[in-house]
Amino acid sequence: MIRVTIWNEFRHEQEAEEIRAVYPEGIHGAIAKALNSPDFAVRTATLDMPEHGLTQQVLDDTDVLFWWGHCAHHEVQDAVVDRVLTRVLDGMGLVCLHSAHASKILQRLMGTRTDRLRWRDDGELNRLWVLEPSHPIAAGLGDFFEIPSDETYGEHFEIPAPDELVFVTWYPGGEVFRSGCCWQRGQGRIFYFQPGHETAPVYFQPEVQMVLRNAARWAVPTATRVPHTGHCQRVANK
Amino acid sequence: MIRVTIWNEFRHEQEAEEIRAVYPEGIHGAIAKALNSPDFAVRTATLDMPEHGLTQQVLDDTDVLFWWGHCAHHEVQDAVVDRVLTRVLDGMGLVCLHSAHASKILQRLMGTRTDRLRWRDDGELNRLWVLEPSHPIAAGLGDFFEIPSDETYGEHFEIPAPDELVFVTWYPGGEVFRSGCCWQRGQGRIFYFQPGHETAPVYFQPEVQMVLRNAARWAVPTATRVPHTGHCQRVANK
Amino acid sequence: MIRVTIWNEFRHEQEAEEIRAVYPEGIHGAIAKALNSPDFAVRTATLDMPEHGLTQQVLDDTDVLFWWGHCAHHEVQDAVVDRVLTRVLDGMGLVCLHSAHASKILQRLMGTRTDRLRWRDDGELNRLWVLEPSHPIAAGLGDFFEIPSDETYGEHFEIPAPDELVFVTWYPGGEVFRSGCCWQRGQGRIFYFQPGHETAPVYFQPEVQMVLRNAARWAVPTATRVPHTGHCQRVANK
Amino acid sequence: MIRVTIWNEFRHEQEAEEIRAVYPEGIHGAIAKALNSPDFAVRTATLDMPEHGLTQQVLDDTDVLFWWGHCAHHEVQDAVVDRVLTRVLDGMGLVCLHSAHASKILQRLMGTRTDRLRWRDDGELNRLWVLEPSHPIAAGLGDFFEIPSDETYGEHFEIPAPDELVFVTWYPGGEVFRSGCCWQRGQGRIFYFQPGHETAPVYFQPEVQMVLRNAARWAVPTATRVPHTGHCQRVANK
Repeated sequence: MIRVTIWNEFRHEQEAEEIRAVYPEGIHGAIAKALNSPDFAVRTATLDMPEHGLTQQVLDDTDVLFWWGHCAHHEVQDAVVDRVLTRVLDGMGLVCLHSAHASKILQRLMGTRTDRLRWRDDGELNRLWVLEPSHPIAAGLGDFFEIPSDETYGEHFEIPAPDELVFVTWYPGGEVFRSGCCWQRGQGRIFYFQPGHETAPVYFQPEVQMVLRNAARWAVPTATRVPHTGHCQRVANK
Repeated sequence: MIRVTIWNEFRHEQEAEEIRAVYPEGIHGAIAKALNSPDFAVRTATLDMPEHGLTQQVLDDTDVLFWWGHCAHHEVQDAVVDRVLTRVLDGMGLVCLHSAHASKILQRLMGTRTDRLRWRDDGELNRLWVLEPSHPIAAGLGDFFEIPSDETYGEHFEIPAPDELVFVTWYPGGEVFRSGCCWQRGQGRIFYFQPGHETAPVYFQPEVQMVLRNAARWAVPTATRVPHTGHCQRVANK
Repeated sequence: MIRVTIWNEFRHEQEAEEIRAVYPEGIHGAIAKALNSPDFAVRTATLDMPEHGLTQQVLDDTDVLFWWGHCAHHEVQDAVVDRVLTRVLDGMGLVCLHSAHASKILQRLMGTRTDRLRWRDDGELNRLWVLEPSHPIAAGLGDFFEIPSDETYGEHFEIPAPDELVFVTWYPGGEVFRSGCCWQRGQGRIFYFQPGHETAPVYFQPEVQMVLRNAARWAVPTATRVPHTGHCQRVANK
Repeated sequence: MIRVTIWNEFRHEQEAEEIRAVYPEGIHGAIAKALNSPDFAVRTATLDMPEHGLTQQVLDDTDVLFWWGHCAHHEVQDAVVDRVLTRVLDGMGLVCLHSAHASKILQRLMGTRTDRLRWRDDGELNRLWVLEPSHPIAAGLGDFFEIPSDETYGEHFEIPAPDELVFVTWYPGGEVFRSGCCWQRGQGRIFYFQPGHETAPVYFQPEVQMVLRNAARWAVPTATRVPHTGHCQRVANK
């Protein structure tokens, strides 16, 4: 049983009727449905909850944290970001979705200006090519899959070279983008997945839901352990 | 159920009594015992069997192949090496042990002269430090573990930089060695693990057996699929 | 002064008038012109020369070898491939161009079936995006550059994950391709660069020529040294 | 001409006579001497200078910044750390030495708790093995080199897996350590080099000085360029 917490900024859906029409239960609600399986115990948390819903207890009880944010990254308290960062380094998986590329937590973990990329929002087709066909996150997909309409992101994307580059997206407007990226940081696994603008029902699409489930299974910690660090005696007298 | 085939050159044990005394059922027999668990269906194969015991049928029925060889690498037929190579690229896991660093199959997969390293055989202590504490292959281990007496290998080891470097070994004689290395090639996962000279009962040691089981679980293919390649039509009419 | 040898299969240009019209001095001749600078001492070699023009002496006098081949990969003698392989591992740079993805030498160095990719030849635009703007091979380029008409290659391309992924190409027909890939093998640097079908004057284009010069400068060995390997004494008596 | 700025905390040398005896001109003075060559234009900066000596102007005029700090990491102002971070991401090279593993700037760039490692200070021998013999930073070295007496660091070291792992150190007390690590972040190159405790004259040793010069040459930006990011129009009308 994988314990997943889905964090959503949850502002667009409350402020704009046309977005609420797409995600009536919030983006977090849609992602929770995608993870509706006996493998997962899912809870959700949002920006406007106390401590953004991410108390130490919640994080301690979380194997994999999903993160969706867009217009209010700056409202996320640094103390909560620190807490999440520590949990990731201690082994919690993290899946950053779409505009979470510019979240404080991803920037902190990557060390680069991950808010730097090209973008335009004209709802064009996204075709995600699978570069690592045997990667667990690509399980069940074909050579590529398409999202009929979503925001466009383009290179250059200022990220450390991914440990594993699972997807690259092609857009009719002429761009490419590293849209599925894996990193290890400390004992935690991090996956960035580009699709999911708030105006398109992307998280209801079966292939996307499959990726979300795969990502949760991939990111779950399997063997974490706190190594001894600090001042140490010699280990060899032998 | 993971289908494992353990391949052993199986010459030392037949030719030298003192080695037979260490491994009375062969090195393959000892490794098979290490994998004695309901998770694994184990078979063995040896150099002197027809087709070295690695017929197409055997390989097709294998999820993970272990390989131990030392003095007779050159006797392994190229046709069998080709067959193993293809199966690895199609997704079969491969675990190369100890002097299999110089095997034809590892050299073919790596593209470098993996027989190039320092070595001496004075049965000294090996201390394997865990560089990736949360790696599935390190599950259950502490910060390091020790093998009381085994052969010494030292850098420089001519390998492509590992995708994941799990262990580095320290030797009292002054060397270090990248002793646990992971690579992805095609759809297959490859693990090289340094311990296991034929004169020391290394594969009976609990920590080593744990690594062997972990490696088998890590190397098993989870999501292989043959991508379409060759001449293709445009995918976009949009 | 960087000593460059440009190897070309040199069959298309002799057999087909329309290709000779594009490359009247051979593809090797065009590449030689691209490298016409005081920084480079250039010679060429072709398949039909004795030993394919790649004697031990020629290779010993070569810092960086360019390789273009297409229809006659199978005619390249294995003994010469072995010789080139050894020189690369000993430090010679190698730049594989276009259909040299399927050359014996690249397959040997990579260990995978690098002939596996999608392709079609309808002379469409190639837009190469720069993923590593500060990489020496991308020096002087903008965010992307375009080749008006060239062959299309698409993923999945069966290569080991590049150490550095410099370019990804976008095609109007809907594909993406890792078109500029760097690897280190042994002491040698290897660059694969996708553009350059025999029917299009790609190697006369200034941006492509800039990439070729950059690649030669990047691939030149700067610090090779043969490490001591084989049986060794203890280094520590201290 | 490579413009180098050497930053030193410069407290130990002022506060402790026995350290001043080792580095009478400060650690920065010793490093400056190591870089005394027509290739380098060197300046120094220290913690107690206004803005720690790292004004925007100084950073803009710096190709490679060396960083040595130990007991006063917390006194480095965050605004200056931000400034250095931005310059690195924009292309300035950074060489972090010894206890700069725990500096704010390295932690920010890595995203992990790089202060986590084993250590003890009993002045034992350090033997640095070269894992990448053709790496520019290892130019001129043999298979290994030794520092007679320095602090001991040991794994586990909480760093993102290095893009290139140049050195691993062996210690008589039984540890190993990734002591020469390269990363690319944004457009900047970063090198971490472990030797150099304040109580031992490590930076006067010829092999260490050679590494420092090599590192400066390796880290110098060669091809930086600001990619266009932010909102963009379609690039394709074709």
